[in-house]
Amino acid sequence: MSVLIVGSTALDSIRTPKAENPRLLGGSASHAAVAASFFSPFKLVGVVGDDFPRRYLDLYKRHKIDLEGLQILPGKTFHWSGEYEANMNNRRTLLTELGVFETFSPTLPSAYQSSSHVLLANIAPSLQHHVLNQMRRPKFVAADTMDLWLNIALQDLIKLLRRLDLFVLNDSEAHQLTKEDNMFGALKRIHKLGPKYVIIKKGSHGSVLSSPRGLFVCPAYPLHKVADPTGAGDSFVGGIMGCLATSEGTIDENIRRAMVYGSVVASFCCEGFGLMRTTRVKRSEIMKRVRELEKLTRF
Amino acid sequence: MSVLIVGSTALDSIRTPKAENPRLLGGSASHAAVAASFFSPFKLVGVVGDDFPRRYLDLYKRHKIDLEGLQILPGKTFHWSGEYEANMNNRRTLLTELGVFETFSPTLPSAYQSSSHVLLANIAPSLQHHVLNQMRRPKFVAADTMDLWLNIALQDLIKLLRRLDLFVLNDSEAHQLTKEDNMFGALKRIHKLGPKYVIIKKGSHGSVLSSPRGLFVCPAYPLHKVADPTGAGDSFVGGIMGCLATSEGTIDENIRRAMVYGSVVASFCCEGFGLMRTTRVKRSEIMKRVRELEKLTRF
Repeated sequence: MSVLIVGSTALDSIRTPKAENPRLLGGSASHAAVAASFFSPFKLVGVVGDDFPRRYLDLYKRHKIDLEGLQILPGKTFHWSGEYEANMNNRRTLLTELGVFETFSPTLPSAYQSSSHVLLANIAPSLQHHVLNQMRRPKFVAADTMDLWLNIALQDLIKLLRRLDLFVLNDSEAHQLTKEDNMFGALKRIHKLGPKYVIIKKGSHGSVLSSPRGLFVCPAYPLHKVADPTGAGDSFVGGIMGCLATSEGTIDENIRRAMVYGSVVASFCCEGFGLMRTTRVKRSEIMKRVRELEKLTRF
Repeated sequence: MSVLIVGSTALDSIRTPKAENPRLLGGSASHAAVAASFFSPFKLVGVVGDDFPRRYLDLYKRHKIDLEGLQILPGKTFHWSGEYEANMNNRRTLLTELGVFETFSPTLPSAYQSSSHVLLANIAPSLQHHVLNQMRRPKFVAADTMDLWLNIALQDLIKLLRRLDLFVLNDSEAHQLTKEDNMFGALKRIHKLGPKYVIIKKGSHGSVLSSPRGLFVCPAYPLHKVADPTGAGDSFVGGIMGCLATSEGTIDENIRRAMVYGSVVASFCCEGFGLMRTTRVKRSEIMKRVRELEKLTRF
């Protein structure tokens, strides 16, 4: 199976109470594609400026990410800068420079258009539509989002939901979208808008899947130390899609385990700044944490 | 096995955005004892005033709660009044009238002193000490607490921790007690203070056990509607102790399943005001939700 991913490809400058790291490789597509690469090869759709460091292109390649759909344009790469509070849950954006991303409107290489799986990682819903419009008949389409798009592009996002198999969002976004305090109430409304599968992320509290086979409560891997949670959600959904694309059987048979794998890759993401830890993870380390999660939840 | 429980026996007036109910049966001991009664008979230690409704005594008796240690004194029953916000997570105390509780200093009936299991439900640490001082050699001692005691009786509480097998507290209390943002950091400090088993409650996100056999991530039963979460934590720990007291084998073998049972009883507690729903629960309903939780978490 081949997987296409579109999302942001960025440089992230991240400050936490303990450290500061400028111009790391970041963006939703970068995190999701590297996470997915442990399970399945990925085709990346994105744009960077001519300031984009060569070493980051090499990093993508080492992870066997197909870069035919990555445009390199004159100008600056999308740059995001943010700061975390001591508990690592609250963050605020210090700076957003869109650069070449401002006018990004990708035309998919023909080899991309027949991908069986599509991950519309966090990016403007209009771009998610634009990519989906160019696809032949994908078997499974998933999308992630963020509060920004609920604030400034709600109608585009709602139109997108009809076109999705899986929609991933966090608990506060689910509340913002549906105005429901109760999770079941929120899930019911989101399913009505289109997607058959909905995953609500709850950060260090794990996530919940709502599917035709009912709910699944997915644990987060408990961490001794969180260095930087940026990209954890993107890693989670990337891991899920990587797993689903390479698993035999139906989505219903595989999605729970795919979420556990995604959760484990996200845990590694949190242990380093940017992609520093994720890119050094070995497949055996992922398997070890999956087995640990099995033990942690058995009763 | 026989279980002794000490805690508050109160009348609760509770307001939520949807309803208001005055002078319900409440208090940590009431919630914990009714929850535990599904698994094991309990001996209650507490005090009420002569205004305490007869029907609440009958309710205790229907749940086979031994009332030899419940004093009925001239004066008013402890009365707490509180209000919940729309999301049911934040509550504020409107009124606290201690009444006969102010000078409560129980002398345990001799039949109580040889109980094998002791649950020191949420109450002043000095009272928890006072009860424990009168016990012969209990096999297993557990205690719950609340932020109030961390604020006004911290040294008493810290001394108590040395005497406990199991300490139960919620995540914000764990942070307040240890000043640690990370759960492992907090757990390490709490274990150092005494208890071999520590459970951190996370409300609707479930709970985590730290024990000699490692961590256990216990799910919360997801609810379609929360009427009133008052007493959910007390029900949880009551259910745990009821289960542990009646299970054969070691604590390590039984505590995970005991937490799941406690979690299920707590879920019923949230579905009604005060004890309204809990007191109507059938054993078969508890078993059904335990089986559902097994399905919800399997991958």
